[in-house]
Amino acid sequence: MPIAVARSLLPPHTLIGMTCNTREHVVQAVKDGADYVGIGPVWATQTKKVLNPVVGVRGLGELLEPLDGTDVKAVAIAGIKSTNALQCLHGAISTTGHRLDGLAVVSDIVASTEPYAAAKRLSTIIHAFKSNKIHTFSGAAGPYNQEYIKDRVGRLLSTIRKHGPLVQQITNNVVTTQSANATLALGASPIMANAPEEMADLGKAIGGLLINFGTIQSLDGMLIAGHNANINRKPVVFDPVGVGASTFRRTSANTLLNTWQATVIKGNAGELAALANSAEVQARGVDSVGKGFSDPAAFVRNLARKERCIVVLTGVVDWVSDGTTVVRLANGHPMLGDITGSGCMAGSSIAIFCAAESTDTANRRAPDAAEDGMLVRGDMLIATVGGILAVTLASEYAAGRADVKGPGTFLPALIDELGRLTAEKIMQAKVEVL
Amino acid sequence: MPIAVARSLLPPHTLIGMTCNTREHVVQAVKDGADYVGIGPVWATQTKKVLNPVVGVRGLGELLEPLDGTDVKAVAIAGIKSTNALQCLHGAISTTGHRLDGLAVVSDIVASTEPYAAAKRLSTIIHAFKSNKIHTFSGAAGPYNQEYIKDRVGRLLSTIRKHGPLVQQITNNVVTTQSANATLALGASPIMANAPEEMADLGKAIGGLLINFGTIQSLDGMLIAGHNANINRKPVVFDPVGVGASTFRRTSANTLLNTWQATVIKGNAGELAALANSAEVQARGVDSVGKGFSDPAAFVRNLARKERCIVVLTGVVDWVSDGTTVVRLANGHPMLGDITGSGCMAGSSIAIFCAAESTDTANRRAPDAAEDGMLVRGDMLIATVGGILAVTLASEYAAGRADVKGPGTFLPALIDELGRLTAEKIMQAKVEVL
Amino acid sequence: MPIAVARSLLPPHTLIGMTCNTREHVVQAVKDGADYVGIGPVWATQTKKVLNPVVGVRGLGELLEPLDGTDVKAVAIAGIKSTNALQCLHGAISTTGHRLDGLAVVSDIVASTEPYAAAKRLSTIIHAFKSNKIHTFSGAAGPYNQEYIKDRVGRLLSTIRKHGPLVQQITNNVVTTQSANATLALGASPIMANAPEEMADLGKAIGGLLINFGTIQSLDGMLIAGHNANINRKPVVFDPVGVGASTFRRTSANTLLNTWQATVIKGNAGELAALANSAEVQARGVDSVGKGFSDPAAFVRNLARKERCIVVLTGVVDWVSDGTTVVRLANGHPMLGDITGSGCMAGSSIAIFCAAESTDTANRRAPDAAEDGMLVRGDMLIATVGGILAVTLASEYAAGRADVKGPGTFLPALIDELGRLTAEKIMQAKVEVL
Repeated sequence: MPIAVARSLLPPHTLIGMTCNTREHVVQAVKDGADYVGIGPVWATQTKKVLNPVVGVRGLGELLEPLDGTDVKAVAIAGIKSTNALQCLHGAISTTGHRLDGLAVVSDIVASTEPYAAAKRLSTIIHAFKSNKIHTFSGAAGPYNQEYIKDRVGRLLSTIRKHGPLVQQITNNVVTTQSANATLALGASPIMANAPEEMADLGKAIGGLLINFGTIQSLDGMLIAGHNANINRKPVVFDPVGVGASTFRRTSANTLLNTWQATVIKGNAGELAALANSAEVQARGVDSVGKGFSDPAAFVRNLARKERCIVVLTGVVDWVSDGTTVVRLANGHPMLGDITGSGCMAGSSIAIFCAAESTDTANRRAPDAAEDGMLVRGDMLIATVGGILAVTLASEYAAGRADVKGPGTFLPALIDELGRLTAEKIMQAKVEVL
Repeated sequence: MPIAVARSLLPPHTLIGMTCNTREHVVQAVKDGADYVGIGPVWATQTKKVLNPVVGVRGLGELLEPLDGTDVKAVAIAGIKSTNALQCLHGAISTTGHRLDGLAVVSDIVASTEPYAAAKRLSTIIHAFKSNKIHTFSGAAGPYNQEYIKDRVGRLLSTIRKHGPLVQQITNNVVTTQSANATLALGASPIMANAPEEMADLGKAIGGLLINFGTIQSLDGMLIAGHNANINRKPVVFDPVGVGASTFRRTSANTLLNTWQATVIKGNAGELAALANSAEVQARGVDSVGKGFSDPAAFVRNLARKERCIVVLTGVVDWVSDGTTVVRLANGHPMLGDITGSGCMAGSSIAIFCAAESTDTANRRAPDAAEDGMLVRGDMLIATVGGILAVTLASEYAAGRADVKGPGTFLPALIDELGRLTAEKIMQAKVEVL
Repeated sequence: MPIAVARSLLPPHTLIGMTCNTREHVVQAVKDGADYVGIGPVWATQTKKVLNPVVGVRGLGELLEPLDGTDVKAVAIAGIKSTNALQCLHGAISTTGHRLDGLAVVSDIVASTEPYAAAKRLSTIIHAFKSNKIHTFSGAAGPYNQEYIKDRVGRLLSTIRKHGPLVQQITNNVVTTQSANATLALGASPIMANAPEEMADLGKAIGGLLINFGTIQSLDGMLIAGHNANINRKPVVFDPVGVGASTFRRTSANTLLNTWQATVIKGNAGELAALANSAEVQARGVDSVGKGFSDPAAFVRNLARKERCIVVLTGVVDWVSDGTTVVRLANGHPMLGDITGSGCMAGSSIAIFCAAESTDTANRRAPDAAEDGMLVRGDMLIATVGGILAVTLASEYAAGRADVKGPGTFLPALIDELGRLTAEKIMQAKVEVL
């Protein structure tokens, strides 16, 4: 029934909503004078058979954009419960900054033995989320300058060495050893577990999670681990190695990103282009081909805004953005390209810095902040820059050593130098805030 | 029917047995004047539907203790056959030293095409077991002193270099390469196979087996490999990495230990505490937290007695026990803690020394000893100490080298020094017999 | 019905064929005056229920031999389609050089929506194959001499460094890291993917494929990857690590070799003996026992002829053959035997040289040669020699370095020296053409 007809039949001031599955539906609903739209399905659900294609958390933002400048409200529907509500609210924000106004929930309340508590839990999450002003993972610290960033990174390094955060790493079988050794050298503690059965336990214990799918051997483990990290508000660093190399990898990356919210996505130009469906850069196996993006700063800013997380584009120069600020990092020795897994090591390093920053921030907060509306605590932009700086700076010191005679001896030297990194060395890094 | 009633109905001197599933059952049976108890089920079985909870090999000992000082006999029941009879007899010994008097077997005889031969086989195993006086894996050599131990370890090193035992290692994917290299450096030959399909073949060929479940990727392979090692009387070293990190790991460790008899269990304080259900030490990921056990000597002695094997507690000081003797080892450089997998390497090293000792002993024995009552031949206490000494001593030499500038260069140096270990260096080790 | 009876009933000059499943059938068909034989089944098929044992591609050659010196024609039957026709024609050649005259195909034409095109495709393949004179993977360059070989290997090294071929490596989890690093050091680009889902995509992108089954973890991936490499005419190097260690490995190796045509098979004496069902040399785990073959040159020549590919026998001396020429290589330092995976690294190196040679040859050919009758382009004998020379020569330079103090420091030095290999160094190699 058209909205106009419904409105003529109903008492004045009746709220009328319309369920929308596409951007066109939303445009039509605004035109027809709907009071609110229900957009989804976010996930496939048992409540009723899903007839429309699943929109997914990452698809919601695009459906919110036609509501910019209107006072039509929006709720997301299907599959939402207290364990994924905050992920949904965070992930649904449009690139224009438009947020959901609420969540439509059935099973999580109705099927609960304590429906009041269940509804209360959801309501608390929604209110906490809406009371937040910052919806990026960079926190409220900006505007940034390079001195501030380097100082904070140096302090984070001390925090890592003092507290030794436990960092879970589901990574490819080419780099597990060296990633674990790099983690230890930086002062953190690695756990390379990937069995789905233990993810719920580990999600509570860890400080952060790395998911690197260079060899996709435990997609189930990756799905469950990321979900548990979200539930426990632990940062998730996603390194979609070689995502452009096959359709299977592209599909897998989408499945992962629709199941949990990444805190940081890291990739080379070929990988991030594949993830963004950009044809500007091509991939060849796990490598990027050609000169990269014509405007890398704009690329990372846009992708960060779209994926609602920190994005790092690695290369000769590394670019980091939270969707607003862009940081340009021009450090690192070319020998990093001569060994396998240096990019993966950077992913581990980012996860370590994120874990330290997140744990440290959570520890310093008042206990009543536990229910705040942020999926991850702390400044993940700073942490991400820290992770990149650690590996690139260490590579410069390693490459300069007299005992390094090629890529074989460079790797042990690189691990050594991660262990010898200091705040003073970090202050020498080339960091530019755009 | 109560025993007293049965006895009143039956002729004098009739033997009356009672099936017991719990310690309380056994206490009652003794009180009621039973002649023997049948305890179990040891394994789930097809003979009759198992209604009572499976006791498991490792649960039998506790049910034998109430028989101490009585002349009530005990047999184990359910799932026993010639391939696991010796494991069952060995594993069932109580911490007080109480042994089974026999085994109740149905299918393995009745369903056999040659029931006489089947019964004979079982009878031979039971008599051989009962004729043994030593039921620990340390053999009959004790009492020990440090000179004897170090001399024997030095000789074992020569045996390894001369015969190059083949050591199968099902280990985590973080350390496979360096564990294989450490094995080669010591002079042994690694095979890192984990496919269940080839375990029966390999069980015959190998000298020893390491099972390390840092990343539990092939539980089936671990189950079948250990079982075949038991059948072929090859030592099994179990390294339950991070067993305290998740319920899944704890459950998996129990499944493994109930399926085969470990010859050596090695772990840090957090891991062994989790295995022993002790709350004295906590684990964090794969690491141990805090200062460890207040009385590590008592802890390893008790756990060795309970698990019927050699137990090694690793840390700044390493403790080894067979349930009677405790050996304290105070060697090793702190840099071992700065690299991943040094503990796993120690596990491989122990498996190598156990393989050499077991093969060497078997080779030196008379052929008619093949059916003796020992699950593993040779002195596994000595072998275990040897495995620990090799890695800890090599670490001291490696850390002292001028070309070691951090954890990255320490690892290759450690492998080098495993290759350069000598009997003379072993004589310098700090070994204390308690 | 006997052929003689059929012939008496039919008009003169009627062609009469007989389906043969064994060598004895073929002998009988010749004796009975058949015009042609249909030999197979090559693969199990849906067309009709296969009652006879599958002969397999590798079994066809033996059935062709009784046709030597006769003019009885032969076609292969069952399971043949355009995607495996060339593999079948190539793999079926007998050790005496007898080729198939055609292929009997049903489904691939009849079940096609475009039967004419399907038949045309098959016909083109058969004619291209038959117009070829060379059916080894060494190409038409021979006779060889050592100067020519070394010069060509040096040029190939430049090609690798210039074009950086993408080499897929499905290898065991002990050596992934160092194989990837060796690949990068030589100047190529590794992709260690093993998920079956992405093999079709990767088969198009890669320059060559290594399949090493040291730890058989993804047999499905290996099967599909090799098949796609055959379809895309990319070289496949097969390293059947430890194939003699278990029945499971022997069976797996046969399954793989019957599914795709290997371009190169590489193994030590124990492995190749197991593959050839020779009892002359025994295996122990992944190692070979004893002194090896009494006549290694004859062994590799015969196995190369039987398996229709290049065969490399590794050891103190390495032997390479295409079934005609045998090349003896006497390079390499004994320290290669002190580290794990040096053999696997040689396998990777061979795959890299094969990828470079194959890509380079394809690039230099006229476009209309795309449908020629060769499964792989370029001289794989040269490429295989190149792969062996790279690792063995690098090992000599590494072992001579002052910073190498044992197997731990030898490995990084070896990787360094792969990166420092030059055409000049290759000219110093000991290469002998027999």
